[in-house]
Amino acid sequence: MFTLRHADGNARLGFMRTTHGVVETPMFMPVGTQATVKGLTPEQLHSVGASIILGNTYHLTLRPGDELIAELGGLHRFMNWSGPILTDSGGYQVFSLSKIRKITDHAATFRSHLDGAMLELTPERAVKIQENLGSDIAMVLDECPPGDATETVLRSAVRRTLLWAERSKRAHTREDQALFAIVQGASNLELRGECAKELVAMDFPGYALGGFSVGEAPEIMHAALGPCAAMLPADKPRYLMGVGRPEDLLASIDAGIDIFDCVLPTRNGRNGQAFTFDGKLNLKNAKHKRDPQPVESGCACYCCVHFSRAYVHHLFNVGEMLGPTLMSMHNIAFLLRLMGESRKAIAEDRSASFREVCLARWQRTT
Amino acid sequence: MFTLRHADGNARLGFMRTTHGVVETPMFMPVGTQATVKGLTPEQLHSVGASIILGNTYHLTLRPGDELIAELGGLHRFMNWSGPILTDSGGYQVFSLSKIRKITDHAATFRSHLDGAMLELTPERAVKIQENLGSDIAMVLDECPPGDATETVLRSAVRRTLLWAERSKRAHTREDQALFAIVQGASNLELRGECAKELVAMDFPGYALGGFSVGEAPEIMHAALGPCAAMLPADKPRYLMGVGRPEDLLASIDAGIDIFDCVLPTRNGRNGQAFTFDGKLNLKNAKHKRDPQPVESGCACYCCVHFSRAYVHHLFNVGEMLGPTLMSMHNIAFLLRLMGESRKAIAEDRSASFREVCLARWQRTT
Repeated sequence: MFTLRHADGNARLGFMRTTHGVVETPMFMPVGTQATVKGLTPEQLHSVGASIILGNTYHLTLRPGDELIAELGGLHRFMNWSGPILTDSGGYQVFSLSKIRKITDHAATFRSHLDGAMLELTPERAVKIQENLGSDIAMVLDECPPGDATETVLRSAVRRTLLWAERSKRAHTREDQALFAIVQGASNLELRGECAKELVAMDFPGYALGGFSVGEAPEIMHAALGPCAAMLPADKPRYLMGVGRPEDLLASIDAGIDIFDCVLPTRNGRNGQAFTFDGKLNLKNAKHKRDPQPVESGCACYCCVHFSRAYVHHLFNVGEMLGPTLMSMHNIAFLLRLMGESRKAIAEDRSASFREVCLARWQRTT
Repeated sequence: MFTLRHADGNARLGFMRTTHGVVETPMFMPVGTQATVKGLTPEQLHSVGASIILGNTYHLTLRPGDELIAELGGLHRFMNWSGPILTDSGGYQVFSLSKIRKITDHAATFRSHLDGAMLELTPERAVKIQENLGSDIAMVLDECPPGDATETVLRSAVRRTLLWAERSKRAHTREDQALFAIVQGASNLELRGECAKELVAMDFPGYALGGFSVGEAPEIMHAALGPCAAMLPADKPRYLMGVGRPEDLLASIDAGIDIFDCVLPTRNGRNGQAFTFDGKLNLKNAKHKRDPQPVESGCACYCCVHFSRAYVHHLFNVGEMLGPTLMSMHNIAFLLRLMGESRKAIAEDRSASFREVCLARWQRTT
């Protein structure tokens, strides 16, 4: 499903074929946890250039239910997104909801954060949910340990992740859906290597690096990414889960990663923070009150073409919904533009200098 | 500025020329109190067919300030709305914020609902604010009494409204902005007549009926509308302020009113209530959970074309912003479609039967 078109050092330019269309890589996937990318219509997502988005197994099976979504024609139709969708497996919630779950080799069992009901997520159930959702790319259930886990915990997580990957693969039936494996092992390269080797032997159509950006220092992640990417086959797509800070994206692309997802652009957008090539802006800040400039000069998103910083500041100041909508739109547009510029830089064999120039601009202004 | 194209009984088909474009009447104006129609982009407003929107003097002068808006090129540019804008005068806040204001012949003085600062709104200041905003249609400052006011209070409000209309007219300087007068007098037709007569003698380019839909029974308003409309010149536009229930709009059109505004479509939309030609729907209701139908069959709005009731129900159930956005969009689309159908019915001399058919459908289903 993946074609590598060009490499510039470790950075890769490629495309990934899915049932609902082709994804150029490197690519960032906006997160639509609950069958909506918060605050945006699918039309607005298209307008900022989104090509693939993410949905969430844990949240969607609780509400509205994966069987209901299947009954209504699947997640694409339910949320009116005609492009590719990747669904995560619930493995991340093993980490983020660690206080309300129990984990055994059989399953991760959650006490619902909504009503206390029990949700038993076996690898087989996670696959079944994603088959009901009908995503283009499904993820195996994994155990994602925290950034400060001991080696014993890490080893156990890797062992269970491998066990579950095998069971997931066996359970998976939809031929129009690709099932990706997830490499765990935190920043322990030996463990990562063991995990990757076994997963590669199982021959998945794509591989993710999980267990990064879960509390460890960014430098630790940056140092581990190159070696981890190199453990994966060159002819398969590589997905770094949950990473979205602009500087981390560029480091990851340089390390040879192809796709990314993160709630950052929408979450920070809802709080009035804008990403730009000149660093971050907090639009709630009083200094923007009379500023006629767009949030980012040269950005072609609907927000930047039509509105001033003063207007966006006003929207946040008075608590209007349009503020979070416009900032989410801009931040997604920014990350997608960053991806586009990165692809261009790789094609022109200047991805390292592109990264340096970006980092220097961000350094200067933030 | 107004051309009466056709009359069907008292119902009028016409158009109103403004600096920013022509408005076909009867027409409903979505309310953009704080320089945004809540939850929608201007692009989305255009897509549902909005032609003229409303802004609010009281709220905009408090935040972000009318001088700041003027400095940034006026309200059209500030909020990126290229069509006509009507601004109210703050007179409605004399009613709605009655607990935090004092009123004398000189001014209505508000203790800001935000920080307790004093805002003195004289007729001259209300005009100046609206000239700073640069709306196409400005309203005179008036005194809007509550629906249960005694005759003494009503007489005093009418006297002050007339005094303020005169002062507003004298203060008004922008030639690219029309200043409309407001008739008060509640359901007391004698007082309405006196007020209208004096205002008509002052020769304003348009007239509004204020002081309706402020607590009185709908039948009382319906009975008064015909006689009140007849007090106004046939060659000037007639604006019924703050009315937006579908049944009230049809009654008002039959009485000879041309333009309307109300927060109802967006406010109810944010609460999950949809207007349809088959009555109201509460999308929060569990009965919509598995419903694959659109909110309203035959509606061409983005929500109805692309999403199911089940999806909208899900959005409200999980508290996603897109729910309020989609329902606000649909409700505005619905009222604008109601206006379009009304204009068509007037053109074809069947406005009374159009109203009867609509009322019968709503009666049956709500």
